[in-house]
Amino acid sequence: MPREPRMDAALVLDRDRVVWIREGRRVRRGDMIAIGKAEDGSEGIYVHSLEDDDDTGEFRFMTSQVSREKPIDYSLMAQILIDERDRGGYPILVTGPALVHSRARADMVWFIENHFVGALLAGNAVAVHDIEASIYGTTLGMTQTGVASSGGHGLHMRAINQVRAAGSIAAAVERGIVKNGIMHALVTHKVPFVLTGSIRDDGPLPEVITDNLEAQDAMRAHTKKATLAVLVATALHAIATGNMLPAFVTNEDGSLRELPTICVDSSEFVVSKLKDRGTHQAFGVVTNAQDFMHILRLYVEREITARTTHYT
Amino acid sequence: MPREPRMDAALVLDRDRVVWIREGRRVRRGDMIAIGKAEDGSEGIYVHSLEDDDDTGEFRFMTSQVSREKPIDYSLMAQILIDERDRGGYPILVTGPALVHSRARADMVWFIENHFVGALLAGNAVAVHDIEASIYGTTLGMTQTGVASSGGHGLHMRAINQVRAAGSIAAAVERGIVKNGIMHALVTHKVPFVLTGSIRDDGPLPEVITDNLEAQDAMRAHTKKATLAVLVATALHAIATGNMLPAFVTNEDGSLRELPTICVDSSEFVVSKLKDRGTHQAFGVVTNAQDFMHILRLYVEREITARTTHYT
Amino acid sequence: MPREPRMDAALVLDRDRVVWIREGRRVRRGDMIAIGKAEDGSEGIYVHSLEDDDDTGEFRFMTSQVSREKPIDYSLMAQILIDERDRGGYPILVTGPALVHSRARADMVWFIENHFVGALLAGNAVAVHDIEASIYGTTLGMTQTGVASSGGHGLHMRAINQVRAAGSIAAAVERGIVKNGIMHALVTHKVPFVLTGSIRDDGPLPEVITDNLEAQDAMRAHTKKATLAVLVATALHAIATGNMLPAFVTNEDGSLRELPTICVDSSEFVVSKLKDRGTHQAFGVVTNAQDFMHILRLYVEREITARTTHYT
Amino acid sequence: MPREPRMDAALVLDRDRVVWIREGRRVRRGDMIAIGKAEDGSEGIYVHSLEDDDDTGEFRFMTSQVSREKPIDYSLMAQILIDERDRGGYPILVTGPALVHSRARADMVWFIENHFVGALLAGNAVAVHDIEASIYGTTLGMTQTGVASSGGHGLHMRAINQVRAAGSIAAAVERGIVKNGIMHALVTHKVPFVLTGSIRDDGPLPEVITDNLEAQDAMRAHTKKATLAVLVATALHAIATGNMLPAFVTNEDGSLRELPTICVDSSEFVVSKLKDRGTHQAFGVVTNAQDFMHILRLYVEREITARTTHYT
Repeated sequence: MPREPRMDAALVLDRDRVVWIREGRRVRRGDMIAIGKAEDGSEGIYVHSLEDDDDTGEFRFMTSQVSREKPIDYSLMAQILIDERDRGGYPILVTGPALVHSRARADMVWFIENHFVGALLAGNAVAVHDIEASIYGTTLGMTQTGVASSGGHGLHMRAINQVRAAGSIAAAVERGIVKNGIMHALVTHKVPFVLTGSIRDDGPLPEVITDNLEAQDAMRAHTKKATLAVLVATALHAIATGNMLPAFVTNEDGSLRELPTICVDSSEFVVSKLKDRGTHQAFGVVTNAQDFMHILRLYVEREITARTTHYT
Repeated sequence: MPREPRMDAALVLDRDRVVWIREGRRVRRGDMIAIGKAEDGSEGIYVHSLEDDDDTGEFRFMTSQVSREKPIDYSLMAQILIDERDRGGYPILVTGPALVHSRARADMVWFIENHFVGALLAGNAVAVHDIEASIYGTTLGMTQTGVASSGGHGLHMRAINQVRAAGSIAAAVERGIVKNGIMHALVTHKVPFVLTGSIRDDGPLPEVITDNLEAQDAMRAHTKKATLAVLVATALHAIATGNMLPAFVTNEDGSLRELPTICVDSSEFVVSKLKDRGTHQAFGVVTNAQDFMHILRLYVEREITARTTHYT
Repeated sequence: MPREPRMDAALVLDRDRVVWIREGRRVRRGDMIAIGKAEDGSEGIYVHSLEDDDDTGEFRFMTSQVSREKPIDYSLMAQILIDERDRGGYPILVTGPALVHSRARADMVWFIENHFVGALLAGNAVAVHDIEASIYGTTLGMTQTGVASSGGHGLHMRAINQVRAAGSIAAAVERGIVKNGIMHALVTHKVPFVLTGSIRDDGPLPEVITDNLEAQDAMRAHTKKATLAVLVATALHAIATGNMLPAFVTNEDGSLRELPTICVDSSEFVVSKLKDRGTHQAFGVVTNAQDFMHILRLYVEREITARTTHYT
Repeated sequence: MPREPRMDAALVLDRDRVVWIREGRRVRRGDMIAIGKAEDGSEGIYVHSLEDDDDTGEFRFMTSQVSREKPIDYSLMAQILIDERDRGGYPILVTGPALVHSRARADMVWFIENHFVGALLAGNAVAVHDIEASIYGTTLGMTQTGVASSGGHGLHMRAINQVRAAGSIAAAVERGIVKNGIMHALVTHKVPFVLTGSIRDDGPLPEVITDNLEAQDAMRAHTKKATLAVLVATALHAIATGNMLPAFVTNEDGSLRELPTICVDSSEFVVSKLKDRGTHQAFGVVTNAQDFMHILRLYVEREITARTTHYT
């Protein structure tokens, strides 16, 4: 048995043939040190761990699958998005209102206009804030720079009233009440959307499905066709959608591929929870929703340019 | 004084010159509505807020109102709970399923049995996990010590099926299918509960109100009578309830007292969000739901003993 | 292949021998349903998962090891604490200042007085706030109920000055300047403590070791004897200690037992991080530090009573 | 005007009637110290704060100053960075290792190369991971796509050993051992850096200052010259630096401007804590460190292009 064991330190054999564990800074020239280069014990040190029968024998760290400290592979995600679009896939975008509170609204419109969104699943608030931004230039009364505007707390209610007076979001777009933004892009590009209600809703807007079972059926009509899911800044909708997603997509030749699921949230909690429920294939991005959309768009644009250049 | 006050709603004057607070969707053509456009009260509505009288100009730190590093005054909360119970108040308890995943279930039953709960507002999952615990001894397949049981992932579905076969939760209690726990205590002690649905729900259980507008109305029937609100481990239900709560309770002599709101969550985010929406009087507790319930019960028991001793 | 696959739903065989996945609420009397009772596929349904070669075949969820939604086994922790004390173990307590901001100070004193602490490892702030609480009744200027006191922002500096004038914490205790609290209990009961410095420190207090390598050596002198570690509300000290802890303790008969490590934090992040670094045997508690200490003490007291009763 | 202002320190009048701000440990017997006991300025010290002039009495929401749901004004931050660079300001960059785990390393190099960094303040880990990335292509054994590499857990130790063998980071750069990255850019562009130690450190690297008081002095040498501070993904270093920063910078004409402080973290907690300690002028960005650096660079590049275009 080594004396004074700890991690991140060296095995030192002293003159009495006793093994000590010593921090690097305590090791001296001439000390006998055990050196292991192979992880499987074939060369030098064999690691035996009592826990986890399924262990491959290797000592590891940084193995948790969701962490704000892991690199985010935007390049890979950009490739997946473009591949799905170009093969005629059905990507569903599921989002919470944090995305609309921000610059990300313009990026989202870009994704819709460039055919990266097969369907949008969201709640009342996403549409309300987006339409408030279109009509009044604010979201929940905040300007684009995050400053509360005078009287701003009532603007989302006035936005709801304008749409209800028009009869529907589609009608409000057609009449020019809603001139830009996410809902405008969806209506204009005929991308289907499902707005599901919750007990937190003001209004709600006319298209919102207030019965949860009807809402689940409406969502299901899209998830069963999904070939890719991007879930941004929403615990409720992300987990509801995760429950409905197939694990695999059937290729044309009958073989299967895993349905890629990108889950973005500002904490590890939601993504880990999604995995806990059995959505194995989710890969998690712990970041701010608006930053995610902006960088993802940037990488998609670069990748499109690279592919265009390459093929010509 | 307006009747049935809440936030995010309109002031409506009826034919008897009584002012009511009404959600936008309840306002009808021809109703007399108070309209305020200026924020300073110069036009229409003057807002009087009691808060922020204590701004003394002093340099301060640790002034953020919600922090895991602030002491939690369980003693004061225990006094408020007992006072409300003893004066015949109407405390509403709003909770998420994290509370049922745990030992806190027994503490919750104690609060119900000892008349500290006027009504319970929750979602499908709270009732499902509680009933799974009663029938199978697990919550989402985990035993009380947090270990996943073999085949446990299906037990909540089996619990739902048993209640649906019985016809209702109340029937399942009466037939002895559900023998203990929160729902059992509510049914046995005739404490009303509202279970509202969401798009995440399995099942749902028979009593769950799946339409959100109906669900809001059912919640509202209790929040308008509330004299105290305790919101534990739920963002969705806490904020939905916060939207509906009056800021003040009218005392018998016509004077007002602030409606105390206790909001418990494992992160600062939900409580801060509740305050951001204008629920000034919320005081926040950043802790684990089961630990909160356990210590609160302990303090309530001590306070009851102290009062009994004192008065005899 | 089943049609419309999703999780949490039933396998239904229709008249054309096609398998559909259907939510429970869509299943009708008379439908042909696949039923599986054994998890290993021996009866009914065999689960095949492509991911994770190490999978035991069972479909699982709630398998992440650290979650605020998992039950906390205070009973088991209480038993471990008492067992270690009674077998003459060397439990080390590592804590951050959040514990001192609060009621937990009294509980901590109780643990020291009842011989549950072999050594305390902490930073300057823990001692500063504890001594401020003893002299002025505040922590960082906040009263015990969390209210900022007038002039309170300077009290921790005044506390430091008083101890520096006395020459050491021990001297300040002996001279009656520090009359109660954690540092008082440590000095009075001759429990060793290590206070390590950081670049955030005010002061620091005289006993604080400002050189990090010296500080590591001082901590190491205790960790190498440790038979139990309790890490509360500190990322810096918890991970520094985790790096130094042995994974096993040698029993008297030469056999090994895992060194139990209890890690308490208000978020999953620190505990997961500790595990990521290879501290396998850590078990995580996601809660508020003061609530943890209070309930743990309660369970230890109950267990002591139970053992006393049992053995007499 | 006092010289070298910072928080949590004393006002000392020297023989030339100049007021200096001095940490308690630098005050000597006989020094003339300003003492204030009343908070309202009636006795000793009158505190004048510019903030809170905008409290208009208006009912507001979304008023909490730090939230993941607030828009991030990258455009304004980019303008501030360029303005400070172009007026010859002294921007200090303070960062934790999460920034190096990732793509952000390349962006950081860009900022150094383009003269946006007056000095870098960080801990041992930032330099270790950066140098590991340069020598082995991994950070804590993870590849750039976040995959654990075989044997990777030891690479940061091997990186430390290589630098220690070279004698210093600067020597390792000169000898071509470290060929790229943050430390390489700092050495090559002669940008000063301070690496301060902590009890969590492996190694440490030769330049790391292991004594905390010396480390504070070394940091202070830069903070007292700072005209802008950017604090990314570090609680320890951000708060230590926040303690040392002046609130104002003196313009050439003797007038004052607030010292802008940009604090980036993945949770609201650190930024709120910084504000709680009195760093009023901090503005908080709740996002992922690598995403922040990438977008900030993008906006700075755009702004530079816009200014160039505009002025020609």
